Amino acid sequence: MNADARAYDRLKQGFARIAVLNEAAAVLGWDAAAMMPAGGAEARGEQMATLAGLSHEMLVDAAIADDLAAVAMPDDEWEAANLALMREAHLRATAIPRALVEASSRANSVCETIWRVARPSSDFSMVREALAEVVRLTREKAEILAQTLGVTPYDALMGEYQRGITAAEIRPIFANYEAFLKTALPAAEELQQRSQAEALPPGPYAMDTQEALCRELSQAAGLDFRHARLDRSAHPFCGGTQTDIRITTRYDEDDFCQALLGVLHETGHGLYEQNLPHRYMRQPVGHAAGMAIHESQSLIIEMQAVRSNAYLGYVAPILSEAFGKAITAGGLQSRLRHVERSLIRVEADELTYPAHVILRFRLEEALISGDLAVGDLPGAWNDGLHAALGLTPPDDRRGCLQDIHWFDGAFGYFPSYTLGAMAAAQLMVAAREAVPGLDAGLAAGDFAPLTGWLAENVHAMGARLGFHQLLERATGKALSPSAFEAHLTARYLSC
Amino acid sequence: MNADARAYDRLKQGFARIAVLNEAAAVLGWDAAAMMPAGGAEARGEQMATLAGLSHEMLVDAAIADDLAAVAMPDDEWEAANLALMREAHLRATAIPRALVEASSRANSVCETIWRVARPSSDFSMVREALAEVVRLTREKAEILAQTLGVTPYDALMGEYQRGITAAEIRPIFANYEAFLKTALPAAEELQQRSQAEALPPGPYAMDTQEALCRELSQAAGLDFRHARLDRSAHPFCGGTQTDIRITTRYDEDDFCQALLGVLHETGHGLYEQNLPHRYMRQPVGHAAGMAIHESQSLIIEMQAVRSNAYLGYVAPILSEAFGKAITAGGLQSRLRHVERSLIRVEADELTYPAHVILRFRLEEALISGDLAVGDLPGAWNDGLHAALGLTPPDDRRGCLQDIHWFDGAFGYFPSYTLGAMAAAQLMVAAREAVPGLDAGLAAGDFAPLTGWLAENVHAMGARLGFHQLLERATGKALSPSAFEAHLTARYLSC
Repeated sequence: MNADARAYDRLKQGFARIAVLNEAAAVLGWDAAAMMPAGGAEARGEQMATLAGLSHEMLVDAAIADDLAAVAMPDDEWEAANLALMREAHLRATAIPRALVEASSRANSVCETIWRVARPSSDFSMVREALAEVVRLTREKAEILAQTLGVTPYDALMGEYQRGITAAEIRPIFANYEAFLKTALPAAEELQQRSQAEALPPGPYAMDTQEALCRELSQAAGLDFRHARLDRSAHPFCGGTQTDIRITTRYDEDDFCQALLGVLHETGHGLYEQNLPHRYMRQPVGHAAGMAIHESQSLIIEMQAVRSNAYLGYVAPILSEAFGKAITAGGLQSRLRHVERSLIRVEADELTYPAHVILRFRLEEALISGDLAVGDLPGAWNDGLHAALGLTPPDDRRGCLQDIHWFDGAFGYFPSYTLGAMAAAQLMVAAREAVPGLDAGLAAGDFAPLTGWLAENVHAMGARLGFHQLLERATGKALSPSAFEAHLTARYLSC
Repeated sequence: MNADARAYDRLKQGFARIAVLNEAAAVLGWDAAAMMPAGGAEARGEQMATLAGLSHEMLVDAAIADDLAAVAMPDDEWEAANLALMREAHLRATAIPRALVEASSRANSVCETIWRVARPSSDFSMVREALAEVVRLTREKAEILAQTLGVTPYDALMGEYQRGITAAEIRPIFANYEAFLKTALPAAEELQQRSQAEALPPGPYAMDTQEALCRELSQAAGLDFRHARLDRSAHPFCGGTQTDIRITTRYDEDDFCQALLGVLHETGHGLYEQNLPHRYMRQPVGHAAGMAIHESQSLIIEMQAVRSNAYLGYVAPILSEAFGKAITAGGLQSRLRHVERSLIRVEADELTYPAHVILRFRLEEALISGDLAVGDLPGAWNDGLHAALGLTPPDDRRGCLQDIHWFDGAFGYFPSYTLGAMAAAQLMVAAREAVPGLDAGLAAGDFAPLTGWLAENVHAMGARLGFHQLLERATGKALSPSAFEAHLTARYLSC
């Protein structure tokens, strides 16, 4: 068949139209979390489902299939990458039979609803059957995607969140970290016990002051508020669209750190979106490279930059002035670097957080391969957490029921958290080497040396490269846990 | 052709899907006015245009045409009315050639953009040519719609905003009002001059207190805030969707009346939407009956109920308490019933407002019929205003450039304002007759006797009836200016 010269232009138009619908859905999703009165939920569900359905219909349209079959490979590497991403999106969308998509969507919805009751009741048996159905249908989808894409079923699932990662590559990296943690954790705990913790002054910290500071410091970190908003929601997130970022957080009068660090974390996500290549806006290649890379961009701001001695020393007097309380850099360090083994992932510190992720990675891989039966999940979870952190959940609420992900059908997402943390550390090393004034900048509240480097080496690359390619191009090295471990050693194991 | 029993069900599904897309657009429209950072405007424009385009594509889809041709007339009068509304919507959408739709949309957009500069410069010549193009294309559309629907061109345009009204019926009603105003206005002015105006205390009135009061009084008037929000925007409006009403207003520290009356006006719109027949949600017949009826529902709350002596007496001590200032019922009456001839429609009082509308009705009818050339508009405007109110605009900024409507291609909307005011007065008379405790309720801050009657006789009717049918069914009388004139006589011409 002769290549159709106009097929690629039509494809670009089609994918742009899909992207516009997804933008509309993103703003409606933000609204549902941050603004919508409770009584609007049912209608909003219909609106979201209709937009998702239309977007899916457009993606599986026969005209797209015809154009993908007829299109000539573009010479330009950006356009070629764009075309490859179109092809994969179309393949993924068409591979799964409609009946399976619908059964899976229903099963996820049913399971999540039951989970919302089972978790507070700490009753795994209540949700076991529904989760088994979710896992069964997810495995079926994963098998089909694996055959279509020529990868393993679990890798096919991970690929929905982050392109270009495989379990085979992740396993040794995670094993390395487990070995590191075996000695690092007791050592960090011992050092922490020997050190004198400096306390932050007790609250109240007025919420309006917290909110004004969050906005000011997010803006100072580079977020362009002509294209962004900051609001409140039950669960902090960064939503909206590339030119209209919507960050949310929640405020606690007794503790300003949660909101502030949360907003700066989301600021990292927002900066990534704002700096994506505008000439490919609404094209697959103009989107972010995936969730692990996205997480690396929030964590490099939150963990690498903001929790650095340089920045904490800069920000302490600003906080003191705003709240009218004596907030010291030492107090911030003690509060923001406190190590404590926790049953709960979202409460975990920087050092032990990967242990939670590694446990979930192993378990979900085993659930998808069939090596682990759903009924055996609570025991496997408890054994795994004990092996990793020496803790045993007293109940399933604080065990395998704690996270929504699996009960909502999200398998393959968890590794992104720790791959992101490792990538953030590796990117920070490379940025420090490339930009001499980086830490001096942070000590003066100036993020530009860091974010300028990120904009050029990460953000501006869009989705052109997969996880490993992007990281290697930016840092000159393959992914390794060593930069992250060195960072943790410096922060938690040296006085 | 045999009637297709399933055609009507398919039509209902199709129109529901269109309605869901329109809901999404309504929330995005609210967001653009109340929340969106300025930098999001360009992307939002694309999102709105894409949703409008999809909604239009669905409406003109051949499958809809086939089903409309094959469908059997339903026995039920609601379903029959629904089908008639589907037919008219499809006819209107398909009648205009795509090239004309696009040319008209572009011309409106160009003209509005020029108007935004021409108005502050008070330079009609700057926008004359662009407006002439808008009028030319609007006349072309009106001609086509007139032939399709079997009505006059101007009535076809009015029908886009309010079904079931004709210029022939409106003319004598407006002429009657002009005659009334000729004697009523000087008499009201003289009475006002003789009376002692009671002043409201000077500000500041804290904006947060104003906002809390607006919410409280809107809720007390019946708006269900489980399905509504109140926010701020440059131009107050009632947007969102039936189960998720979004009211906005703006606050002035020196004057709480503007925000308060504005919110209660929008509350009337919101109550109408919230009380529409839920069993026809997302069907054409489940929507509001049109803009004139909608305006009657905001004006019956704002003008008839809230500005009544009964309610002002009730609310004065509440306002005094909230603001910590001596606000009397007399002070509110003087402020909210002040009569003053104005060059500007949106600043006009209840008595002279219709004069502004009648002028615009005459002029736009003449523009559409071709009796008035666009170049002659400023002169015709100034002559008309002088004849009506004895005022001559010193410049076109305060003359024919003041309203956005025509420059944005909206012809046929203006009559809705005054038809709404007259319908509100007529409905109030009927409600008072039907519900004995209505004014006693208002004197105790209880809107339920009034809103209960409106819910049953107006809101619950959806779009089943046209303007005149609905009004006659609810009040037992044809539209007449007499109830409105009697109301104004009682309020402005008696001591």
